[in-house]
Formats: sequence, C-alpha cells, structure tokens
Amino acid sequence: MIAVIKIGTPQSQVDNLIDWIESQNVSVHVSAGHYQTVLGLIGDTSKIDMELIENLDIVDTVKRISEPFKSANRKFHPDDTVVDVSGVKVGGGNFAVIAGPCSVESHDQIIEVANKVKASGANMLRGGAFKPRTSPYDFQGLQADGLELLIEAKKQTGLPIVSEIMNANHLDLFEEVDLIQVGARNMQNFELLKELGRTKKPVLLKRGLANNLKELLMSAEYIMAGGNENVILCERGIRTFETYTRNTLDLAAVPMLKELSHLPIIVDPSHASGISRLVKPMAFASVAAGADGLMIEVHNDPLNALCDGAQSLTPEQFDDVSKKVQRILEVVRS
Amino acid sequence: MIAVIKIGTPQSQVDNLIDWIESQNVSVHVSAGHYQTVLGLIGDTSKIDMELIENLDIVDTVKRISEPFKSANRKFHPDDTVVDVSGVKVGGGNFAVIAGPCSVESHDQIIEVANKVKASGANMLRGGAFKPRTSPYDFQGLQADGLELLIEAKKQTGLPIVSEIMNANHLDLFEEVDLIQVGARNMQNFELLKELGRTKKPVLLKRGLANNLKELLMSAEYIMAGGNENVILCERGIRTFETYTRNTLDLAAVPMLKELSHLPIIVDPSHASGISRLVKPMAFASVAAGADGLMIEVHNDPLNALCDGAQSLTPEQFDDVSKKVQRILEVVRS
Amino acid sequence: MIAVIKIGTPQSQVDNLIDWIESQNVSVHVSAGHYQTVLGLIGDTSKIDMELIENLDIVDTVKRISEPFKSANRKFHPDDTVVDVSGVKVGGGNFAVIAGPCSVESHDQIIEVANKVKASGANMLRGGAFKPRTSPYDFQGLQADGLELLIEAKKQTGLPIVSEIMNANHLDLFEEVDLIQVGARNMQNFELLKELGRTKKPVLLKRGLANNLKELLMSAEYIMAGGNENVILCERGIRTFETYTRNTLDLAAVPMLKELSHLPIIVDPSHASGISRLVKPMAFASVAAGADGLMIEVHNDPLNALCDGAQSLTPEQFDDVSKKVQRILEVVRS
Amino acid sequence: MIAVIKIGTPQSQVDNLIDWIESQNVSVHVSAGHYQTVLGLIGDTSKIDMELIENLDIVDTVKRISEPFKSANRKFHPDDTVVDVSGVKVGGGNFAVIAGPCSVESHDQIIEVANKVKASGANMLRGGAFKPRTSPYDFQGLQADGLELLIEAKKQTGLPIVSEIMNANHLDLFEEVDLIQVGARNMQNFELLKELGRTKKPVLLKRGLANNLKELLMSAEYIMAGGNENVILCERGIRTFETYTRNTLDLAAVPMLKELSHLPIIVDPSHASGISRLVKPMAFASVAAGADGLMIEVHNDPLNALCDGAQSLTPEQFDDVSKKVQRILEVVRS
Repeated sequence: MIAVIKIGTPQSQVDNLIDWIESQNVSVHVSAGHYQTVLGLIGDTSKIDMELIENLDIVDTVKRISEPFKSANRKFHPDDTVVDVSGVKVGGGNFAVIAGPCSVESHDQIIEVANKVKASGANMLRGGAFKPRTSPYDFQGLQADGLELLIEAKKQTGLPIVSEIMNANHLDLFEEVDLIQVGARNMQNFELLKELGRTKKPVLLKRGLANNLKELLMSAEYIMAGGNENVILCERGIRTFETYTRNTLDLAAVPMLKELSHLPIIVDPSHASGISRLVKPMAFASVAAGADGLMIEVHNDPLNALCDGAQSLTPEQFDDVSKKVQRILEVVRS
Repeated sequence: MIAVIKIGTPQSQVDNLIDWIESQNVSVHVSAGHYQTVLGLIGDTSKIDMELIENLDIVDTVKRISEPFKSANRKFHPDDTVVDVSGVKVGGGNFAVIAGPCSVESHDQIIEVANKVKASGANMLRGGAFKPRTSPYDFQGLQADGLELLIEAKKQTGLPIVSEIMNANHLDLFEEVDLIQVGARNMQNFELLKELGRTKKPVLLKRGLANNLKELLMSAEYIMAGGNENVILCERGIRTFETYTRNTLDLAAVPMLKELSHLPIIVDPSHASGISRLVKPMAFASVAAGADGLMIEVHNDPLNALCDGAQSLTPEQFDDVSKKVQRILEVVRS
Repeated sequence: MIAVIKIGTPQSQVDNLIDWIESQNVSVHVSAGHYQTVLGLIGDTSKIDMELIENLDIVDTVKRISEPFKSANRKFHPDDTVVDVSGVKVGGGNFAVIAGPCSVESHDQIIEVANKVKASGANMLRGGAFKPRTSPYDFQGLQADGLELLIEAKKQTGLPIVSEIMNANHLDLFEEVDLIQVGARNMQNFELLKELGRTKKPVLLKRGLANNLKELLMSAEYIMAGGNENVILCERGIRTFETYTRNTLDLAAVPMLKELSHLPIIVDPSHASGISRLVKPMAFASVAAGADGLMIEVHNDPLNALCDGAQSLTPEQFDDVSKKVQRILEVVRS
Repeated sequence: MIAVIKIGTPQSQVDNLIDWIESQNVSVHVSAGHYQTVLGLIGDTSKIDMELIENLDIVDTVKRISEPFKSANRKFHPDDTVVDVSGVKVGGGNFAVIAGPCSVESHDQIIEVANKVKASGANMLRGGAFKPRTSPYDFQGLQADGLELLIEAKKQTGLPIVSEIMNANHLDLFEEVDLIQVGARNMQNFELLKELGRTKKPVLLKRGLANNLKELLMSAEYIMAGGNENVILCERGIRTFETYTRNTLDLAAVPMLKELSHLPIIVDPSHASGISRLVKPMAFASVAAGADGLMIEVHNDPLNALCDGAQSLTPEQFDDVSKKVQRILEVVRS
C-alpha cells in the first residue's frame, strides 16, 4: 500500500502517522520526493483500513498494490485447479457442458430433457428448484419437490446435477446435488458463502449483476477461506445501459479471470441475453474466449415454461450448438 | 400489457396466441392498425411471463403498462405511511435523525456516542454488530456482543436502536432492536426478506448498489406481501463510473419514490460518499430533496475506528449538521 | 405509441388530449379498459414528443412501440448491406480484417507494419493520424503528415486505408482515405455525422463508451438520412464497473445488431480490453459471435509505441490470430 | 507514478526498464521490498504512457499518483475562480440563476419568458438555438434565427445570455452570446474545446452522460491549456440503471469538484430528471450541496414546447423555486 502525503505537511504529523501504521504491525518505507512524500506500507496490509488513512487531513491519496485475494490468486497457485464434480472434471483442459431447464416442472419434463441433453453431449444436468424472483408474486420453484425430481433424473441418466441454493438452512436438501450454485443476487450473501465454505461440496459461484472481477474473487475467497477449494466461477452477464439484451455478457472476464486466478471459469449465455436467438452465437463466443465450460438452458416446450422460457433452447437447437462448440474448442486449443 | 405483432403474421397464428393468453385467465383486446396489430392484455397480467411472449416468432415487442408492485404503490394507498419505531414516528411529516458509529466497538464508545448524538438531536441510535465486508479477512463486527452493547446504550439513553441483520437465523438476537436494517448487498436476499415479512418489526430497507427504484419497491413488496407493512426505504448511493466518491447518491430517488410509493424514505449520506467531508453537504441536500430522515455515522475517534472511519463525522460536526438540517427543513416545508 | 391515462381522469380532459394529438397529424385509437384507458397513436409518431405527453397530469405512462430508426432498420431492408471499400467488400458474408498501428509514427513504421499485416491476411490498413486524447498534454497524432504516410503505405501495398476524423473541416485531407472512422467520443457529434452524410465515403461508426444499440443506430441514421448509406458499425467496448479491463466488449451486440439492422458490424478487440494479452481470445470470440470483420492494432515495437502500445499485437501474434480466425469462421458459417 | 515489478523478475530486466524510463526524462526511485520491488517515477510523468508500462511482462501494476489536470487543479490555485459573464459574477460566493426555455421558439415566447424569469430573480437567460437531438428527424432548433431572438431578449432585459454551440464553425454567430455552453455529448469533442480555448469567452462545460469528474476536469483543461480560464463546470446528471428518471443527478460532484478544482460549479436539475415535478426538490438539493448556481428550464406553455417541455417549469413555479433557493443559500452559508 502506498500513501501520498499532502504538500506542506509538517514532519511531526507525518511521524505520527508512521507511528500509528507501525503500531498495526506494518513497516513503513519513506520516499521523500521533490514535491511529495510517499509512504510505502510493507507487510500484511490486508488489515489496514485504506479509506481511514485516505480520509486523514495530511493524506492526499492511498493506493493498494497487492491483490486482496489470496487463496484464489494464481500468483500463489500457478497451476489450473481442476474441480471434480462427482467424476466430471472441470478446468485444466476439461470442458463442462451443463444443460437443462431453467425450472424443474414435472417428472416427465426433467427426465425427457435430461435424456436429450445427455444424448447431445451434456455432461451435467441443471434444473432450478428454488428460484430467486424479483417479484414475490412470481413462481418461486417447486423447491424440495423439484430437487427430488432432479435427483430422480440423475439416477436415470447418471449425469451429476446442478441446482441453486438460496438459504443455508436448505443445505440438507442439497446433499445429493453434485454442484451447488450460488446465484448472482447472492454473490455477496456472505453468510451463505461462509456456510458453503464449511462443506466440501463443489460450488458454482455466479458473478453478481453489478460486481467486478475483484469482488467475484473476494466472494470465492470467502468460500475458500473456510476450507472449501472446490469453486467454479461463472460469468453470466452484468448490468449495463443496453436494453435490447437483458444483461451484457462480459467475455473478456474469461481470459482475465484465468490470468488472475487458477479457478475454472464457465459461462452462462442463456441468462445473459435473455433471448434464445442469442444463445447460440454467445455460446460459440464463450468457447472461443477460452471458457472451461458452458451452462445452457434447454426446454422441451419453451412456450409453456413456467419461467425464463424466453431464453431456452429446444433440444434440437442445443444439439447443433453442442457439436459446433467441440469444433471451435479444437481450433482454439490447437 | 401490450404485445405488438410482427407485420405479415398470418391471422391463424395471432389467434393461437390469443387463445393461449386467454387460457391464462387474461382477456385480450385486439387493435388492428394500418401497419401493426397490437394486443392489449387486460386483467391480472402479473402471472404472464413477459419475456416468454416477447420471444415468440410472431411478436415484435411487449410492454408492461402497470407497475408490478401493489402493496407499496401509492396508487392504491394515497396517504403517506407513518412507521412507528418504538414511539419515534417516521414519514408523513415526521423526520428521523438516526446517528451512531459504523461498528459498535466497546461499551464506552457506544455509550459516549449515544449520549452525544442524543444531545445533538438524534432520535434513533445506529450501530453495526454484524458487518458485511467484501473481504473475509476484514473485521466482521462484534456480532451478538455488539448487539448487547447497543441494547445497553438504548437503556441508558432511551433512543430506539437500529442495526443490520445478515441472516434470518439471527432474528432472535434482534428482539430488542427497534428497527432492523437490511443492507444494500442483501436487498435481493429474498429468503431474508420473506422472514422479515413474517415479523411485525419495522424494517429499514437499503437500496442495492446497482438496483433501480422498481427493484427496491419489489423488495419492499416481498416484506409487505408477508404481512409486515412497517417498511422504511433508504437511499444510500448507487454504483456509477465515478471513482472520486465511493458511490453516487441518487437524491432524485427521494421525490421519485414519494410519488411512486407511500412508504417513508430516508437517506444515508455517509456510506454513499465514503468521505466524511462530503457528509455535511450531502445531508443538507438530502433534506432539501424532501427526505423523511437521515442516517449518519458519528464516531468519537475516527482514526481508530475499526471500519469505515473514513466516512464518520465527529460529534461536533454532527451537531452542526443536525442544527442546520432543521433550518433547511423549515424552508423546504414552508 | 401508447399512452395510458390515469385512473379517474374526466372524459373532457381525455378528449382535449386526443384533439391535441390529432392536431399533430396522428390518429388515435381509444381502448377503454376496466381499470385504465389506453390511447394508441397511429401514424408517423416520430414527431411526437414522448416526454411531453408523459409529463401531463392526466397521463400515467407512455410507451413507444416502433423503432425510431428507419434507414438502418432491417424491417424495411431485409437483405444484408454490403459496403464496398475501394474494392474490399464488407458484410453479407464478406469478412474484413483491418490491421495496423494505433498511431502512424514514421514512414518506416507504417510501411513495415502494412507489409506484414498484408502478408498475414489483412485486407485493410488502419493507422491513426488525428488522435482523440483525454489529456491536452498527450500526443495528438502526426495529423496531416500521418495521413500522407498512410496514403504512401496504401500505394505500396494496395490496401485500402482507414483513419479517424475528428473535425468536419478536415474532410479534404481525407479524400484518399477509403474508410473514414468516427470514434466512440464523436458518436454523437451530430454536426460531424451530418457532414459525413453529405459525402459518399464509407464510414466506420464506432459505438460510444456509454451508448446503447438504439443510439448507435440513430447515429447511423444521421449519416444515412443525408444520403450516405455506406455505414459499417463497430463494437469497441462499453464502460462498466469492471476495472481490470479498460472497457467491456459487448459481443451480444453483434447478433443483436444483425437482427435490428442490415448494416455490417465489425469488432475492435484491441481498444476494448486495452491489454494485448486479451486481444487474441476476444478476436476469436468476436468471429464466433458472428462479426463481419475485425479491427486489430498491430505494432512492430510495442514498447516504443507513442500511444496505446499496451493493446497492440506484434506482427507474429497477429499472424497466428488471423489464421485461426479463418478456421473459426468456417465452423460458425457451416 | 508507481510501478510494481512482478515477483521473480531478473534484475537485468528491471534495469532495462529503469533505463527506458530515465530516457523519457523521468527519474526513478527504487524501493526493494521483501516481496516486491516498487519503482517510483519522479518528475513530469504526464508524458509517460501508463498502459504501455502496465503491459510489460515484468510489470504487475502501475498506479498514477498525481492528478493529470493542472490548470484546473485547486492544489496549484487555492482560491476560488470567479468568472465574469458580462458583469454577472459566478463563483467565489456569487450565485448564478440561469433560466429560460429549452429552445428559443419565437420572438414573443423568448421575450415573455425573459421578462418573467428576470422578475423572479434570474440573472442570466438561457435558450437553445442549436439543439443536439438523438434522432435526425427531431427538431434541431431555430439555429441562427434562434440566436437572433435571444440577442433581442438580451437587449430588452439586460440579462447576459447562454446558448449551446455544437460546431466551432459557428463561433462567429456566438459573438454576442455571453456564456457559451458545451453540451454533455460534446464534452469530449476535443476539437471544439481547443477552439474555445483560443477565445476569451466564458464557457459553460457540461459533464458528459457517462464521464467521471476527472474526465470533466481534463476537458476543462483542454480549454484552459489554450489560454481561456473562464470555465464554469456544470453537473447535469449521469447515466445509470435507473429508468424512472432520465439521468441521475450526482450532487456529491458539487463538493467533490470544489475540493479538486477552483472553478465554479453549477447544476442543471432540469435535464437531469427530465420530469418537471422533480426540478424543484432537485434545485433545492443542489443549492444545499453547495452549488455556485442553477440552470433551470422555464417555459410559458409546456404543452406546446417543441422540445423537452416535459422538464420545464412554468414561470410561477420558477418564482417559488427562486425565492426558496435564496433562503436555503442563507442557511448553508451561515
């Protein structure tokens, strides 16, 4: 951390500040320039309140130099992490294709979709049981019953299953869920993250609608700090001024996160655009950008889907996407 | 809701869509124009998935006409709601001055600050016990002990107390907290909102960092739909591209929310800017914009504050702010 | 356009509004529902001030139904436009590879880069002569001399050239420039757009940093309304909260613009990220998303580049990108 | 400027970088820490391309320490600048009240409004003649004729006049305009700014829709670097996700800009919200936040205004606003 002292500050006040910083077990390197004095804080500055120092009368600006995340940082863990989701590996060259309906609606629906996406190359099945909806009057998911149906589909197809958790009190219900999803709106639900950190369950952590990559990695850090290193990151679109698309998929996040962190990163092109016609080109683009996997909504009858039907592919469309994705993967990795 | 049909769509397909909409218990008014056919959906359209219809091949655009919030809507409740917080009224001309430290740190600290802000005109005491921090390595608050100290300060001063909840499982601990705060990062923690809806406790609902006013009102709706109408809204700054200030206080939200809703709206100028020098002008501006109250951080020793000291006023600064706020209030309400 | 009348409005006031609207040569279709009266405005509503009506006491909301752009609209021009840039076709299946340095710096530099990018498959040469810089103290480009050098490179290689204009008074200097670029900061410099509309020169119109797709198309409309239909759109990244990357490339803009408009759309992955390491994956992603071309910065000596060296590829890196782009193109178009 | 070197970089490469930096006439202070080596660049670093260094393989991060603006910087000019607009002083305790119609429409309109706003306390008259409109089909202003009518109103009332320029070629037409406005969309039209820097005319520089305060000050710097120090800054709202209001007025910009710069700062609450009902509370809030003036749209017949009628006050509403503004000013300055 670097603190720049205001021009004309008496030396005695600078010394007071240095004493205070050193009392926090951080050493200080003083660099007195022509115009300005700069203090370099050396040691574990993660406990120093940057804004507090910035607000002092004698301080001009404060800059943090080292990244505030550690467990998720590639600097301290150069090799790709490979997360094992009940036998399906994600990251380090292993590509995940997660497909399934936005919401689990019925036995027949989930079984049919599960069989079709498996036949088209999916290696995990997704399905929402607890649904975060902006309106209390919207369909909130089949909840525990939805999880039961999803587990039934897992038994029939052998596909590991992925579903979203909204409340740490529900963890028992998720015992047979192979990959627990934390949705965008809960990315900074720190209480939930801490609970997941106490399990060993693989977690799929979605980026918040208006969160930057540092915040996403800090949320991964919450889970990892608890001892659970099985974290997969997910880019799903951020909020911008664009209104034709629901969110703006930030695909540069893929190579950028790979540089900053060793964790696998997958992309959800369905939620990002909110429009099924855009899922195919954005799935291709995600793979071309270097993603470790895709999560795609597939529904057997979009017109009657209870939620988010607008962004679902039919099984036939998914089959076409899935095949071309493999071909793009070959080019990118060649 | 209005659905505009694409030019050149065969009548049979339009009829199919009308049949489907009517099967959802919504009636349809067809307006066949020169260029385009427009369907007007009449009745309770809150169950109709707008995006699903928008995604149909034959549909050009869909527009929602009525607001999706009901209990919070001024249209159906023209008079200002007055929330009673253990005897202190908020809204409908009653002005709330909530002051206190960002974090409760010690017995002496909270008692001293409580006495000082009371003397300067505060009518509620705030203090953080459970702290949402971006980093797992940052101070997380004194938690249950912090609440104990806050309750002690309430006994000594008679001021109702305000503190943030992060986990519905903590509700028992908040029994003597008079106004329960939902922080910006939990504004869309729907599970927490539902639990608060089942209590009768006054709730201070802060706007999320990147949420719009409609979403804030939908979150209020979650609480109200459960039967708890004691909701106070709080503008605390939104995320923008500006970097000199931490967040951008959206003061137009005050008159706009008063037009849309009957709920009281207060402003937190401390978190918004993150800089104590800006708290005074922004507190004045909040009152001038018509706010029903202020929530201001006050600390007896900012340099040693464990968190967010950078944005706290000293008791002396708070005293000056508090007095001038009353004078601006007189002008605005004259 | 649809105007929803407030509940309880006297019929006489509704009639007054209808009279006023009809005096603007727009006819009105009245749909009186159970709860609300909705006016449908039929005809050329582009002259109606939507906000004026919205502000009337008796009006609840106003929604525009038809797109405000016409010449650029695919609805009225279903086939892809192919822009001919001095023999190089862009759009309708023709892929543009525009490469070259951020700034033209010297004779040797531009000739060397031009020959190298041509050998690697570029079919147009870019080079900045007039540079828009945030600071008046930054290098502003070689200006007229830069254009001379660029024209020299065109003579030697036969590649059509692309350069940015910042002032309509410079149009004479751009006579031999084959594709005139309007930069992001000038996307809404309407005076410049009008002047370009009076020429027949192909124009490369970049999306503004915080502009949405509708505004981009309205700016294209400014050029086309003047009689110049040779417009190529360019996505170059928008401003978001992310700070690791300079801007956020919005690749969903590619398929979305292709749906809304018949104009070709290319992507500039160099400016978007501001980091050369991200150019390659983002170039691949752009092609996978369906772009009609790429504009990539290539420099023979990034460390000494006068501006934006940070985002330039070396000729060797460009060669690798260029070859794989063709392979991805094959997959996407198969 | 501070450059942090990557861990494990060979000393020879660090030395190469230091040599290169020193060749740019900047001296380097090396601070070799336990973990990381930090280079401090001392001298005039405004010519150093920060991104170029950041992109080097051996560099981890680069931080700029000093502000990139100089002429506009309060550090080098501690006293408030007072801009004299044909006798009306702005800044340094002098409060400007600029009022008038969005567009000049007719002789009678502008004379009537001018007389009324003068009677209510306005000390400058605004009126648009050249209008920047998103659509080429919208009313573009009366242009030269509009300026003539505005000059006529100046003669009759003695009020200095304010109008927007969109093209440096129009400067001759603005000879009798006392304060030339640069609109939000032209804030980074650097060619226009340079031309205005060559005049001595007072310039009202509006903040761009998605520009931060540093960029606003850099644009002021463009004008001042040319020799024209008569710059008044104007906050007019920025683009956010909120849709109920057209833009989000950033009132914290007022005290923040006063800290960063010595230039006067006024607020335009009319454009920001786009809704006349919000103009009054936001005008009050602007004054309470410490603004040096207000610019308010006033129209004698909002329903027939050719543009932006939705955001105009009637003369009677303006009179009420104007009087209370003076009373709030008294409180704030006491």
